[in-house]
Amino acid sequence: MIMVSVLYPQDGGTKFDEAYYMQKHIPLVKERWSGMGLQDLKVLKGVPGPDGSAAPYRIMAMLTWESAEAFGKGAKAHGPELFGDVPNFTDIKPAVQISELLG
Amino acid sequence: MIMVSVLYPQDGGTKFDEAYYMQKHIPLVKERWSGMGLQDLKVLKGVPGPDGSAAPYRIMAMLTWESAEAFGKGAKAHGPELFGDVPNFTDIKPAVQISELLG
Repeated sequence: MIMVSVLYPQDGGTKFDEAYYMQKHIPLVKERWSGMGLQDLKVLKGVPGPDGSAAPYRIMAMLTWESAEAFGKGAKAHGPELFGDVPNFTDIKPAVQISELLG
Repeated sequence: MIMVSVLYPQDGGTKFDEAYYMQKHIPLVKERWSGMGLQDLKVLKGVPGPDGSAAPYRIMAMLTWESAEAFGKGAKAHGPELFGDVPNFTDIKPAVQISELLG
Protein backbone atom coordinates (compact mmCIF):
# COMPACT_ATOMS: atom_id res chain seq x y z
CA MET A 1 0.00 0.00 0.00
CA ILE A 2 1.26 3.49 -0.81
CA MET A 3 -0.11 6.96 -0.25
CA VAL A 4 -0.04 9.61 -2.94
CA SER A 5 -0.50 13.10 -1.50
CA VAL A 6 -1.40 16.03 -3.75
CA LEU A 7 -0.65 19.22 -1.85
CA TYR A 8 -1.93 22.64 -2.94
CA PRO A 9 0.07 25.37 -1.13
CA GLN A 10 -2.01 28.11 0.47
CA ASP A 11 -0.05 30.89 -1.19
CA GLY A 12 0.72 29.09 -4.44
CA GLY A 13 -1.85 30.80 -6.64
CA THR A 14 -4.81 33.11 -6.90
CA LYS A 15 -7.82 30.79 -7.16
CA PHE A 16 -9.18 27.41 -6.15
CA ASP A 17 -12.70 26.54 -7.27
CA GLU A 18 -13.73 24.19 -4.48
CA ALA A 19 -17.15 23.44 -6.02
CA TYR A 20 -15.63 22.31 -9.33
CA TYR A 21 -12.95 20.36 -7.51
CA MET A 22 -15.37 18.42 -5.30
CA GLN A 23 -18.20 18.02 -7.83
CA LYS A 24 -16.24 17.42 -11.03
CA HIS A 25 -12.56 16.72 -10.50
CA ILE A 26 -12.63 14.31 -7.56
CA PRO A 27 -15.49 12.22 -9.00
CA LEU A 28 -13.56 12.03 -12.30
CA VAL A 29 -10.43 10.86 -10.47
CA LYS A 30 -12.43 8.18 -8.65
CA GLU A 31 -14.14 7.07 -11.85
CA ARG A 32 -10.88 6.66 -13.75
CA TRP A 33 -8.79 5.08 -11.02
CA SER A 34 -11.18 3.05 -8.83
CA GLY A 35 -10.79 -0.03 -10.98
CA MET A 36 -7.02 0.39 -11.26
CA GLY A 37 -5.95 0.06 -7.64
CA LEU A 38 -7.09 3.31 -6.02
CA GLN A 39 -8.46 2.15 -2.68
CA ASP A 40 -9.35 5.35 -0.89
CA LEU A 41 -9.35 9.10 -1.51
CA LYS A 42 -9.71 11.71 1.19
CA VAL A 43 -9.79 15.47 0.68
CA LEU A 44 -8.53 17.65 3.53
CA LYS A 45 -9.07 21.40 3.68
CA GLY A 46 -6.66 23.44 5.77
CA VAL A 47 -8.13 25.51 8.57
CA PRO A 48 -6.43 28.25 10.61
CA GLY A 49 -4.31 27.15 13.57
CA PRO A 50 -5.19 28.00 17.21
CA ASP A 51 -3.15 31.21 16.82
CA GLY A 52 -5.06 32.18 13.66
CA SER A 53 -2.18 31.37 11.33
CA ALA A 54 -3.08 30.05 7.87
CA ALA A 55 -2.60 26.35 7.16
CA PRO A 56 0.40 25.60 4.90
CA TYR A 57 -1.86 23.84 2.38
CA ARG A 58 -5.23 24.93 1.14
CA ILE A 59 -6.13 21.41 0.06
CA MET A 60 -4.45 18.04 0.63
CA ALA A 61 -5.75 15.10 -1.38
CA MET A 62 -4.66 11.75 0.08
CA LEU A 63 -4.93 8.82 -2.33
CA THR A 64 -4.39 5.30 -1.04
CA TRP A 65 -3.17 2.92 -3.77
CA GLU A 66 -2.68 -0.81 -3.50
CA SER A 67 0.87 -0.51 -4.88
CA ALA A 68 3.33 1.85 -6.55
CA GLU A 69 3.01 -0.22 -9.72
CA ALA A 70 -0.75 0.28 -9.81
CA PHE A 71 -0.33 4.03 -9.35
CA GLY A 72 2.26 4.08 -12.14
CA LYS A 73 -0.15 2.33 -14.50
CA GLY A 74 -3.02 4.58 -13.48
CA ALA A 75 -0.95 7.72 -14.00
CA LYS A 76 0.15 6.51 -17.41
CA ALA A 77 -3.38 5.62 -18.50
CA HIS A 78 -5.27 8.66 -17.21
CA GLY A 79 -2.65 11.20 -16.02
CA PRO A 80 -2.92 13.48 -19.05
CA GLU A 81 -6.70 13.79 -18.67
CA LEU A 82 -6.69 14.17 -14.88
CA PHE A 83 -3.68 16.48 -14.58
CA GLY A 84 -5.03 18.37 -17.59
CA ASP A 85 -8.19 19.12 -15.60
CA VAL A 86 -6.27 20.96 -12.84
CA PRO A 87 -6.26 24.39 -14.61
CA ASN A 88 -10.08 24.18 -14.64
CA PHE A 89 -10.17 24.73 -10.87
CA THR A 90 -6.86 26.26 -9.80
CA ASP A 91 -3.67 28.00 -10.89
CA ILE A 92 -1.83 26.50 -7.91
CA LYS A 93 0.84 24.02 -8.93
CA PRO A 94 0.50 21.14 -6.45
CA ALA A 95 3.38 19.25 -4.88
CA VAL A 96 3.04 15.49 -5.17
CA GLN A 97 4.44 13.09 -2.60
CA ILE A 98 4.55 9.31 -2.69
CA SER A 99 4.84 7.65 0.70
CA GLU A 100 4.95 4.22 2.22
CA LEU A 101 3.09 3.46 5.43
CA LEU A 102 5.48 3.00 8.37
CA GLY A 103 2.78 2.38 10.93
CA MET B 1 -13.37 15.04 12.94
CA ILE B 2 -10.18 16.92 12.12
CA MET B 3 -6.79 15.87 10.80
CA VAL B 4 -3.58 17.19 12.29
CA SER B 5 -0.63 16.70 9.93
CA VAL B 6 2.93 16.99 11.20
CA LEU B 7 5.18 17.44 8.19
CA TYR B 8 8.98 17.04 8.36
CA PRO B 9 10.54 18.61 5.24
CA GLN B 10 13.11 16.48 3.46
CA ASP B 11 15.73 19.23 3.44
CA GLY B 12 14.79 20.82 6.75
CA GLY B 13 17.60 19.39 8.84
CA THR B 14 20.50 17.00 9.15
CA LYS B 15 19.10 14.01 11.02
CA PHE B 16 15.98 11.98 11.67
CA ASP B 17 16.28 8.97 13.96
CA GLU B 18 13.54 6.76 12.57
CA ALA B 19 14.05 4.02 15.16
CA TYR B 20 13.60 6.42 18.08
CA TYR B 21 10.67 8.05 16.35
CA MET B 22 8.79 4.80 15.74
CA GLN B 23 9.77 2.99 18.95
CA LYS B 24 9.67 5.83 21.46
CA HIS B 25 8.03 9.01 20.18
CA ILE B 26 4.97 7.63 18.39
CA PRO B 27 4.08 5.20 21.21
CA LEU B 28 4.40 8.10 23.68
CA VAL B 29 2.08 10.25 21.55
CA LYS B 30 -0.47 7.43 21.41
CA GLU B 31 -0.21 6.80 25.15
CA ARG B 32 -0.79 10.44 26.07
CA TRP B 33 -3.51 11.24 23.55
CA SER B 34 -5.48 8.03 22.98
CA GLY B 35 -7.82 8.74 25.87
CA MET B 36 -8.21 12.40 24.88
CA GLY B 37 -9.79 12.11 21.45
CA LEU B 38 -6.96 10.90 19.20
CA GLN B 39 -8.70 8.33 17.02
CA ASP B 40 -6.01 7.30 14.54
CA LEU B 41 -2.34 7.97 13.84
CA LYS B 42 -0.60 7.03 10.62
CA VAL B 43 3.07 7.60 9.80
CA LEU B 44 4.00 8.05 6.15
CA LYS B 45 7.59 7.96 4.89
CA GLY B 46 8.33 9.76 1.63
CA VAL B 47 9.81 7.66 -1.17
CA PRO B 48 11.40 8.91 -4.42
CA GLY B 49 9.04 9.73 -7.30
CA PRO B 50 9.00 7.78 -10.59
CA ASP B 51 11.64 10.20 -11.92
CA GLY B 52 13.88 9.63 -8.89
CA SER B 53 13.11 13.01 -7.33
CA ALA B 54 13.07 13.19 -3.54
CA ALA B 55 9.72 13.40 -1.76
CA PRO B 56 8.98 16.88 -0.35
CA TYR B 57 8.56 15.43 3.15
CA ARG B 58 10.69 12.86 4.87
CA ILE B 59 7.93 11.95 7.29
CA MET B 60 4.25 12.91 7.44
CA ALA B 61 2.39 12.02 10.62
CA MET B 62 -1.39 12.13 10.16
CA LEU B 63 -3.38 12.33 13.40
CA THR B 64 -7.15 11.96 13.30
CA TRP B 65 -8.86 13.73 16.21
CA GLU B 66 -12.53 13.65 17.13
CA SER B 67 -12.66 17.46 17.24
CA ALA B 68 -10.55 20.61 17.23
CA GLU B 69 -11.51 21.15 20.87
CA ALA B 70 -10.17 17.73 21.83
CA PHE B 71 -6.89 18.43 20.02
CA GLY B 72 -6.64 21.79 21.76
CA LYS B 73 -7.06 20.15 25.18
CA GLY B 74 -4.59 17.41 24.29
CA ALA B 75 -2.01 19.90 23.10
CA LYS B 76 -2.40 21.94 26.27
CA ALA B 77 -2.12 18.92 28.55
CA HIS B 78 0.77 17.09 26.87
CA GLY B 79 2.21 19.41 24.21
CA PRO B 80 5.25 20.50 26.21
CA GLU B 81 6.30 16.89 26.84
CA LEU B 82 5.56 15.64 23.30
CA PHE B 83 6.94 18.63 21.39
CA GLY B 84 9.88 18.64 23.81
CA ASP B 85 10.72 15.11 22.68
CA VAL B 86 11.22 16.17 19.04
CA PRO B 87 14.90 17.21 19.43
CA ASN B 88 15.58 13.65 20.62
CA PHE B 89 15.06 12.35 17.09
CA THR B 90 15.43 15.24 14.66
CA ASP B 91 16.62 18.79 14.14
CA ILE B 92 13.96 19.30 11.46
CA LYS B 93 11.33 21.83 12.47
CA PRO B 94 8.02 20.33 11.34
CA ALA B 95 5.17 22.22 9.75
CA VAL B 96 1.82 21.54 11.39
CA GLN B 97 -1.46 21.68 9.52
CA ILE B 98 -4.97 21.34 10.87
CA SER B 99 -7.55 20.26 8.30
CA GLU B 100 -11.20 19.41 8.09
CA LEU B 101 -12.41 16.49 6.00
CA LEU B 102 -14.22 17.64 2.86
CA GLY B 103 -14.88 14.19 1.53
